Amino acid sequence: MTLDRENPLRDPQDRRLPRIAGPCVLVIFGVTGDLSTKKLMPAVYDLANRGLLPPGFALVGFARREWEQQDFAQIVHSAVRQHARTPFREEVWKQLSEGIRFVPGELGDDESFARLKATIADLDEARGTGGNHAFYLSIPPGLFPTVVDQLRENGLAEQHEGRWSRVVIEKPFGHDLRSARELNRVVSQVFPSSSVFRIDHYLGKETVQNLLALRFANQLFEPVWNNNYVDHVQITMAEDIGIGGRAGYYDGIGAARDVIQNHLLQLLALTAMEEPTSFDARQLRAEKQKVLAATQPPQRMDLHTARGRYTGGWAGGEKVKGYLDEKGIPDDTKTETYAAIRVDIDNRRWAGVPFYLRTGKRLARRVTEIALGFKRAPHLPFTKTDTEELGYNALVLRIQPDEGVTLRFGAKVPGTQMEIREVNMDFAYGGSFTESSPEAYERLILDVLLGDPPLFPQHEEVELAWQILDPILDYWASQDERPEDYLSGTWGPESANEMLARDGFVWRRP
Amino acid sequence: MTLDRENPLRDPQDRRLPRIAGPCVLVIFGVTGDLSTKKLMPAVYDLANRGLLPPGFALVGFARREWEQQDFAQIVHSAVRQHARTPFREEVWKQLSEGIRFVPGELGDDESFARLKATIADLDEARGTGGNHAFYLSIPPGLFPTVVDQLRENGLAEQHEGRWSRVVIEKPFGHDLRSARELNRVVSQVFPSSSVFRIDHYLGKETVQNLLALRFANQLFEPVWNNNYVDHVQITMAEDIGIGGRAGYYDGIGAARDVIQNHLLQLLALTAMEEPTSFDARQLRAEKQKVLAATQPPQRMDLHTARGRYTGGWAGGEKVKGYLDEKGIPDDTKTETYAAIRVDIDNRRWAGVPFYLRTGKRLARRVTEIALGFKRAPHLPFTKTDTEELGYNALVLRIQPDEGVTLRFGAKVPGTQMEIREVNMDFAYGGSFTESSPEAYERLILDVLLGDPPLFPQHEEVELAWQILDPILDYWASQDERPEDYLSGTWGPESANEMLARDGFVWRRP
Repeated sequence: MTLDRENPLRDPQDRRLPRIAGPCVLVIFGVTGDLSTKKLMPAVYDLANRGLLPPGFALVGFARREWEQQDFAQIVHSAVRQHARTPFREEVWKQLSEGIRFVPGELGDDESFARLKATIADLDEARGTGGNHAFYLSIPPGLFPTVVDQLRENGLAEQHEGRWSRVVIEKPFGHDLRSARELNRVVSQVFPSSSVFRIDHYLGKETVQNLLALRFANQLFEPVWNNNYVDHVQITMAEDIGIGGRAGYYDGIGAARDVIQNHLLQLLALTAMEEPTSFDARQLRAEKQKVLAATQPPQRMDLHTARGRYTGGWAGGEKVKGYLDEKGIPDDTKTETYAAIRVDIDNRRWAGVPFYLRTGKRLARRVTEIALGFKRAPHLPFTKTDTEELGYNALVLRIQPDEGVTLRFGAKVPGTQMEIREVNMDFAYGGSFTESSPEAYERLILDVLLGDPPLFPQHEEVELAWQILDPILDYWASQDERPEDYLSGTWGPESANEMLARDGFVWRRP
Repeated sequence: MTLDRENPLRDPQDRRLPRIAGPCVLVIFGVTGDLSTKKLMPAVYDLANRGLLPPGFALVGFARREWEQQDFAQIVHSAVRQHARTPFREEVWKQLSEGIRFVPGELGDDESFARLKATIADLDEARGTGGNHAFYLSIPPGLFPTVVDQLRENGLAEQHEGRWSRVVIEKPFGHDLRSARELNRVVSQVFPSSSVFRIDHYLGKETVQNLLALRFANQLFEPVWNNNYVDHVQITMAEDIGIGGRAGYYDGIGAARDVIQNHLLQLLALTAMEEPTSFDARQLRAEKQKVLAATQPPQRMDLHTARGRYTGGWAGGEKVKGYLDEKGIPDDTKTETYAAIRVDIDNRRWAGVPFYLRTGKRLARRVTEIALGFKRAPHLPFTKTDTEELGYNALVLRIQPDEGVTLRFGAKVPGTQMEIREVNMDFAYGGSFTESSPEAYERLILDVLLGDPPLFPQHEEVELAWQILDPILDYWASQDERPEDYLSGTWGPESANEMLARDGFVWRRP
């Protein structure tokens, strides 16, 4: 009985083995970019080093460069040496590097793709990659149709019995609902939806799974996870950096499209969704879609949205430029670098609980968190003065930088008559487990190679998110004013504070 | 709005001032004992040092010793120097020592009490103690009637308009229901119930208030504080020490009378009671009494009780004696040094949730805690292997040695597919507040002098506790067997483990 109680679900015969990808070729378009150098190539090495890639694996880079094979191998080598998470081992590198190829070329050029096709065919033969191909589109979304067409025309997108072809695309998934639909139309003509992997690089699979485990593996939180106890939710992704050299990408996109559309609405979906019967891809997606479909755009655009744009100031002990002074930003830009919105979820669990989403650049700290604010106890059997320093209880799921959970509740101040003040109770993944988290890209790439898509958003979710965001973007576009200025290193524009104050809340200062 | 939200109950006009005792005399009977030296006299000094005693305060020691005033002052002085919590300050000591008197005498002797009466009258005059007297009975309970009678006969128990006379008694409050009633009859003939202060020195007021704040100042715990979510409760007070030199007191009393009757059943009452409308004495007592009245003695004495007695072994790196080898313990004793019982509470909130209470000497660690074990989630959307290391969630209120709260719940193991394991989330009063907790006796003595009784048990609670314990003691007395042996430094007898295992639980190893 004792043992059953401790581990009622244990089946000692069931030993969990790591899942190893099968033979395949991974092709990266835009392999000269920052993402590829800092994240993708090191992640490939780390997977190899952890024994999760098969001998029959090959990596192909495609870019507009006059490089020889050797040059590219050298570039991958130095990216790995600089950015890999796991130690460098010569024998792993040797094995991996034998399968590395470079194809120079233009995305719109038929000859280049013919060369790519020949290289892949060659690898299928020489490395035994078995005709399985993944195409990682680390390129601007405007170029997706070109590449997808080329893949189709060269027969590289065909799904044959026992072989696969997959495509990986990164956010933003379109610029609004219309363009997202168009993008999806183009991609889905060539690839079936089960072969399209949309990656939110902010949201590692690890984080999603932590969230799911916290909500559903416990009996402690789910009972209060509803509008009987929660009075509002704040979902924050704050960055302390500016736009860096990415003016060309960022301007015209802005904070709402860049972060709220994908990352924050995915976090909202995971926080607010009902419990799926199981975590298989279909069930999880169905729940996320349900809750996104129930999520209403702000009812009063003037009261429930706020946007801002950073001005010069001090951040991290350094003098920094304002957005308008960043290189490549036009003077008349209306792009916001901070966006905050209130949405409501029209279902039984969440009716009456506002969800506040905010994101911004050049804020006071880099932090991503989901905070559930709890109603006060309906009655306090204390005298008024006892509780004068009592704020409100909150459960905070910390996602960045130190993933964990914080519970904020009232406790008695020692030695006083009966004074109550908030205290924090913390749990940090880093402090509680000796296992370390793999880099998000390792998990994401491995899942692509394994064909394991449960945590990637499907097109339906992307559309639902745009349906929430489009009316806000239209409203902002219709306004003559520019986004409100906020000082770099602060927590954003005053209008965002007023937005919460009107509802009787304050933003957390995490 | 913002400020209101942060502190909706703040009233800036209301400044909390420390409450200072009014003029009075504190008389300690049994002033030569350990408790007096180590706890009572230092606590009096600490109160004086914190400015909580008035200038018109006097301390009278009464004992069978041929001491001069000076000897006694010296004894108090060295007790304070050795055991006080706050720094020694000459001017505080000087002020305090001027009001210290010693009365040598026998408890049964009329002349001694006449001397005591004269000393007190003298102090009332000289120190301005205003006829207010507190009598601390730090003596064996068998002697209470003698002292109480003497106080009555000498007019020292009289309650006059504007003056007070109070008596402090320590557990055990009787030896069983019958003797407790008799003791109460004797005391209540002389003192009205509002003037009788029963002290549980294990249970500081601070701890009680922490418990109340945690339960009722928060909206997070109360929703799951019932039989929908909790599947059992474990209340533990474990000591690592043996009986020391206290054979005369301990033998014939045993663990159940010494700790369960008062301390553990008080903790049970505070844990299980409904929320009082306010924390005034009457309301709090009414709730404690209600829940104690609903608490049923074990239904099956053979299955729901366990008792043990320590044998020699190693504890704290030291070889220690068994109970039978302790000085002054008769060979044929049946006294238990470990007791564990299961009780059930027959009300809507707790029906079906067993409460397990255990206490013992020479256990593996000194620890006092209340642990609520939570039911598993009714459905886990994980695969079987994901949760193979998942035990059960628990909320643990730690009382000794580092007061705080621990929440135990399942979280995902980083890097694995979806493996879930328990983690702890901690809050420690010591780490969260700069204020330090006063020694329990400081709070207790100050409350006596202030006449502030809400947290002291009344006679009704004492009776209710005996009603739960009496059938168990009768059952044990009726058995021929001696208590089961357990090795010093372990967690008690095997029968206690079996008791829980039969119900499908295991004792925590805190």
